[in-house]
Amino acid sequence: MNSFTFYTPTKVIFGRDAEMNAAKEIREFGGSRVMIVYGGGSIVKSGLLERITRQLDNEGIPYITYGGVKPNPVLSHVREGIKKALENGVDFILAVGGGSVIDESKAIAHGTANPGVDVWSFWTREVPLEKTIPVGVVLTLSASGSEMSDSAVITNDEIRSKRGLSTDLNRPKFALMNPELTYTLPKYQIMCGIVDIMMHTMERYFTNDLGNEITDEIAESLLRVMIKNGPVALENPRDYHAMSEMMWCGSLSHNGLTGLGGNKDFATHQLGHELSAMFDVAHGASLSTMWGSWAEYCFSQNPERFAQFGRKVWGITGENTEKAGRAAIEKTVSFFASIGAPTCFSELGIGVQPESVINELADRCVFYGKRTIGNFRVLGRDDVYRIYRMANR
Amino acid sequence: MNSFTFYTPTKVIFGRDAEMNAAKEIREFGGSRVMIVYGGGSIVKSGLLERITRQLDNEGIPYITYGGVKPNPVLSHVREGIKKALENGVDFILAVGGGSVIDESKAIAHGTANPGVDVWSFWTREVPLEKTIPVGVVLTLSASGSEMSDSAVITNDEIRSKRGLSTDLNRPKFALMNPELTYTLPKYQIMCGIVDIMMHTMERYFTNDLGNEITDEIAESLLRVMIKNGPVALENPRDYHAMSEMMWCGSLSHNGLTGLGGNKDFATHQLGHELSAMFDVAHGASLSTMWGSWAEYCFSQNPERFAQFGRKVWGITGENTEKAGRAAIEKTVSFFASIGAPTCFSELGIGVQPESVINELADRCVFYGKRTIGNFRVLGRDDVYRIYRMANR
Repeated sequence: MNSFTFYTPTKVIFGRDAEMNAAKEIREFGGSRVMIVYGGGSIVKSGLLERITRQLDNEGIPYITYGGVKPNPVLSHVREGIKKALENGVDFILAVGGGSVIDESKAIAHGTANPGVDVWSFWTREVPLEKTIPVGVVLTLSASGSEMSDSAVITNDEIRSKRGLSTDLNRPKFALMNPELTYTLPKYQIMCGIVDIMMHTMERYFTNDLGNEITDEIAESLLRVMIKNGPVALENPRDYHAMSEMMWCGSLSHNGLTGLGGNKDFATHQLGHELSAMFDVAHGASLSTMWGSWAEYCFSQNPERFAQFGRKVWGITGENTEKAGRAAIEKTVSFFASIGAPTCFSELGIGVQPESVINELADRCVFYGKRTIGNFRVLGRDDVYRIYRMANR
Repeated sequence: MNSFTFYTPTKVIFGRDAEMNAAKEIREFGGSRVMIVYGGGSIVKSGLLERITRQLDNEGIPYITYGGVKPNPVLSHVREGIKKALENGVDFILAVGGGSVIDESKAIAHGTANPGVDVWSFWTREVPLEKTIPVGVVLTLSASGSEMSDSAVITNDEIRSKRGLSTDLNRPKFALMNPELTYTLPKYQIMCGIVDIMMHTMERYFTNDLGNEITDEIAESLLRVMIKNGPVALENPRDYHAMSEMMWCGSLSHNGLTGLGGNKDFATHQLGHELSAMFDVAHGASLSTMWGSWAEYCFSQNPERFAQFGRKVWGITGENTEKAGRAAIEKTVSFFASIGAPTCFSELGIGVQPESVINELADRCVFYGKRTIGNFRVLGRDDVYRIYRMANR
């Protein structure tokens, strides 16, 4: 077991009616004027918003609401939220939604706690973030893991730049998780969630810092549970068991536990982010599009690791390392295909791209030569170019 | 996945030199006058105490020390500690040791935060605990899991009563875990730690609230890792890998993760506690002494659960549920024996006991008929009597 720091202070209340603890937990964590942040109108239509505001009314906790968060939350909407929060003396943000709503809530919290500072400067690292106001979560989508994670991704729509910020100040105070709230999701979103949850674990699993036995075992466990329950959830989004396993796996997959002692890779995320930015495709779909090509390209870095992945996650037998490892990639890509997740550009719906676009993607992904991506295998501009080409079919 | 609450706010810093973060983390969590609590003189001799006090000196954080915590921490020593803490205006307790030192530190913290109240009244539930002062941990023994847990067990030496208190206020602020600090433990203590860590998971695994797939998988993972690494650690306590896996498993085993969605059993703990109380035997040894008999007695409650335990943890094959389940018990008992853990009274070193003692143990264990123990199978006085008899060989 290698060295690590593990800090997951978020209090999780999980199960049916979990959202009914909102007012109680807001009080517990010191909230006295709340801003409820959400996305589209689905939480209004479903009655979820009212179930929450009724609690606040009953408890005499004043609140304002702030909807309209976009799927890739944008800075301009964050700024407007901060302005509204400051005008209303808000001291607690309640995020009701999935990853985008939670990430934007984190950003609004940071901006509200630091009124004189341009909030984007925390994301560019120009100003170190030193305080925030508390954020609580009512989760409606299993995918991002943002409900327990230390990260928040914001898109600056003024200069078209998407950036992540990792800090313990991003950890929500509480997360209320009722799997029933995910029953009405479109199947495409459930599929994207399955990919995202698996990838959060796989991006940690493919590391060169080996010898973390209990971490590996937990990661392999989580992947097996997702492979078993993901398709059931997709088939019947009202299957409480499958949806609940998926919801808790989503949090565990990104709270740190599945990667303790190892360096994260996250190359597939970077490759996918550029696809999302250029073609406006869903995050989960961009990941499944890129992973198979990434894996083929990086296989020789450590065939034994792929073989272990195959044996423990996919039940592949046989002594031959090369064969087991290659079979593991094939199994994973087939699984993605089986749940309707794209595994190449044409399946993603963007079609085969001309050479110029592949070059542009590669340039952008490595910040025009200013960075490499990945840790399992460190990838430069040419590597990234080749991986995009492999997926360009 | 059944409903649960999961709250593990303890910040874990794990690895070589982890203890060198003590001053930094005390500051981080608001400590300005520290009491260092420890047991015997081993941390003085090893230089660990000095490595910690030097940090506090360098940082200008005033501190006092308070040693002499006993293996089963007693109330009289807790009271003395509270007095000393109050006299010196202490606002932070640093526990340097294993479960007993940590549990006593928690008790001293509660007493210090509530100076007008008899600290024992929190353990008897006469007074609800509503505040405490922060506790940090430098761990020197992998076993109790107290470094992340919500529980603390104190023995009232005035009235000879041992009681546990579970509350989130028992969760330490941070735990610094350097596996090298466990290199010098006596082998008997390492053996007891292996049993204790496995039992914390098994007491949760044997539940009637089934259908928690990811929880089961994590519990099974942890047991496999302990079964593999425990004997290696025992053979060579300077094996960093084995000792580190054991250390992190110790925390995960008792922070809640391995039992989420299920009701805990803990009958074996209650059976063992009476043995410890009457014969002053080590906690871990009392657990291995009782588990096999408990398992045989409770087998019919759910043979399928024992079979799953056998298949997933011990790799037992074959379709027959009864056979797989029985084999799992045999494997577990043999494993305990193989690491030198007692599996009956004579192996525990107390010898075969007369009928009168068995009756006395049974009476005490169920508080003279005032309670039952266990949840997997609820055990009354007669059940407990029979289980003690089975172990009385």
